[in-house]
Amino acid sequence: MDRSSIAEDFEELLNVGIALSSVHDLERLLDLILQEARRLTRADAGTLYLVRDSKLIFKVSQCQSLSDRLGEGRMRQVYQSYEMPISRESIAGYAALTKKVLNISNVKEIPEEAPYRYNRSWDERAGYSTQSMMVVPMLNREDKVVGVFQLINALSIGGVVPFLAEYEKLASSLASQAAVAIENAELTEDLKQAHLDTIFRLGVAAEYRDKETANHIKRMSNYCASIAESLGWSKEAVNMTLWSSLMHDVGKLGIPDAILQKPGRLTPEERRIMEYHTIIGGNILRGSEAAVLKQSRIIALTHHERFDGTGYPRGLKGEAIPVEGRITIMADVFDALSSRRVYKSAFSEEEVLCIMGEGRGSIFDPIILDKFLSRLEAVREIQRRYGEREEDLDKFRSLDYLIIEEEEERKKA
Amino acid sequence: MDRSSIAEDFEELLNVGIALSSVHDLERLLDLILQEARRLTRADAGTLYLVRDSKLIFKVSQCQSLSDRLGEGRMRQVYQSYEMPISRESIAGYAALTKKVLNISNVKEIPEEAPYRYNRSWDERAGYSTQSMMVVPMLNREDKVVGVFQLINALSIGGVVPFLAEYEKLASSLASQAAVAIENAELTEDLKQAHLDTIFRLGVAAEYRDKETANHIKRMSNYCASIAESLGWSKEAVNMTLWSSLMHDVGKLGIPDAILQKPGRLTPEERRIMEYHTIIGGNILRGSEAAVLKQSRIIALTHHERFDGTGYPRGLKGEAIPVEGRITIMADVFDALSSRRVYKSAFSEEEVLCIMGEGRGSIFDPIILDKFLSRLEAVREIQRRYGEREEDLDKFRSLDYLIIEEEEERKKA
Repeated sequence: MDRSSIAEDFEELLNVGIALSSVHDLERLLDLILQEARRLTRADAGTLYLVRDSKLIFKVSQCQSLSDRLGEGRMRQVYQSYEMPISRESIAGYAALTKKVLNISNVKEIPEEAPYRYNRSWDERAGYSTQSMMVVPMLNREDKVVGVFQLINALSIGGVVPFLAEYEKLASSLASQAAVAIENAELTEDLKQAHLDTIFRLGVAAEYRDKETANHIKRMSNYCASIAESLGWSKEAVNMTLWSSLMHDVGKLGIPDAILQKPGRLTPEERRIMEYHTIIGGNILRGSEAAVLKQSRIIALTHHERFDGTGYPRGLKGEAIPVEGRITIMADVFDALSSRRVYKSAFSEEEVLCIMGEGRGSIFDPIILDKFLSRLEAVREIQRRYGEREEDLDKFRSLDYLIIEEEEERKKA
Repeated sequence: MDRSSIAEDFEELLNVGIALSSVHDLERLLDLILQEARRLTRADAGTLYLVRDSKLIFKVSQCQSLSDRLGEGRMRQVYQSYEMPISRESIAGYAALTKKVLNISNVKEIPEEAPYRYNRSWDERAGYSTQSMMVVPMLNREDKVVGVFQLINALSIGGVVPFLAEYEKLASSLASQAAVAIENAELTEDLKQAHLDTIFRLGVAAEYRDKETANHIKRMSNYCASIAESLGWSKEAVNMTLWSSLMHDVGKLGIPDAILQKPGRLTPEERRIMEYHTIIGGNILRGSEAAVLKQSRIIALTHHERFDGTGYPRGLKGEAIPVEGRITIMADVFDALSSRRVYKSAFSEEEVLCIMGEGRGSIFDPIILDKFLSRLEAVREIQRRYGEREEDLDKFRSLDYLIIEEEEERKKA
């Protein structure tokens, strides 16, 4: 390998770095890192691990010859999720420990006195023959190990060869770029998660006085996301729907207890005030630049509009109702019917579907209703996952249930 | 310049790319981009512009010889903030329009027929002589112009020389790295802003029933941040305090109207229930992984603990009260005293300070109180910025004020 080709490789690495920086989805990023590392070093296979709590967690594996032979799906089954300690017990652990690239010509000829061992079990299970291997720790700018990738079986015209020594530097440059990209993707993920968590709490807070439970909010928003998915929306739009529907009832915060918690029927005047919760929600969410809050505002304002124009607050009709509103009213009514409340027990699924069907074209957009009904299995899964237990209901019923957590007490003690 | 030195430059560029990716603060990032671009191309000076709404907005300028001569501070004054169209009228606009690097040996010798002009006004104002210039558009992966940097006066032993042609590629590689780093920093900024916005709304929602105003929350949290600053906390910790104090009263959502809105004095039993708002807040914010929500929870739980141990809910004493709680009670009491409420007019600043002083050591941590009192100018500035107007108070008083915004109406019409 001559100098100018190495220079070209480095130039290419610049573009790889830019490509890695542009991927914010961690799973896709890890896949891309391993793919580029294999391409640059002409490796048949590879695996990638991330450091979590002082352990290496297996994340990705790729193998050209196995996936050619077995197909992508079967190949992935061969790799089970597993973790291993950062120690001399494994080659990856050793590389993470020493923070050095390890270039092994043939794993079957590792001398007895070498400080690491090769674990043959995977080769045996997958029917694969690992020979050459380059193990590269991904170090961040503070020289902390973020993860490790292993490149397996360098390919040449004649078959498997050892990895060129020149590739060690190239691979560790790539690993540095990968480390910062991974940390950035995790930062983005954390920021999104923290935001989602806050949105969820705003939703929970809104239901607090209404004696709804946190799980109602979770079911509701998951139904909405499921409907959005059935409409063929992008992953991002589905997620946005999940988030923004969490706040649909935030305006109930502005409704007096005397009306919100009245046991009997509301008078027409009380009902008029109750219906204001849509507009109050719109006000609380007004004027934000954030896309999720903009969509939340639309949902807060329109989740009681009915398809035939008899809903509130504006009596919008048909497609004039924003699609998010048409989705949310369906999820909301479905969950109200199928959940137990203080004043009523839950309807059976059969009864619920019958009642929903009666609302076809009057309350609900017929097209969206059909999509919803075509995904009952997903709906049932959401019900199972976020079902209500007796204690959950009690928790929201009594002031005396309120506790300060043990851990808090301990911390102060 | 020989080939191997170009290869070294590219290798160095890899490290620059990693460094840029690690900076999430946009202002610092832009500074670093220009600095590295100048270093790699041996440029005495440079300016950097970002694209905003189809215009180029001036962001950074650096000039070694001017800051040597005038000092950093004076140098910055020479550069005023300005914007220019993306058009042939300016060199930077031309580069943004054509998406090509422009390498000009001497701006004073630009031929008449060239499609761009050099604007001498800055040279005249700053007493600087621009000769060579390289103008580099920063293109993202979709080939969209994110911004432009101008490198001015390449330095050599003999003085100012034209920029080497070899640097064009190097600079545009750096520009690609810069573009993705800028987009990432902006994404991070947007995510944080959206989160802050949601936290603010959770705070506003909590005060909705209490007839507090959105500006109360803003003043409160800004007082808290100001106190945190006076304690010498890091910029990040100050920001965290700003955010997390926004939700201190979120637990009021769980208090019945009959108590929360009672006009007269509370009975001992009603007072006991009212005090639960600290614990309800703790419950709403319980169990989050997000640092800001963890700190919010501590504030919700402890912002009514008094320094002498006579506060609630736990009667913590002195330093056993988390410092965030000790800060928040001070900001809360100060704002309550100095604001007009339905049932009382505002006290004068003199009266407020006198009352605050009486709480020294009983309600308030004396050290934190002294810090607060030493920053009255900052406090007054916050009051001016987030003062209450008559209509703000009214807005929160009447259901009938509730409106659906005009723009919404128009969109549906």
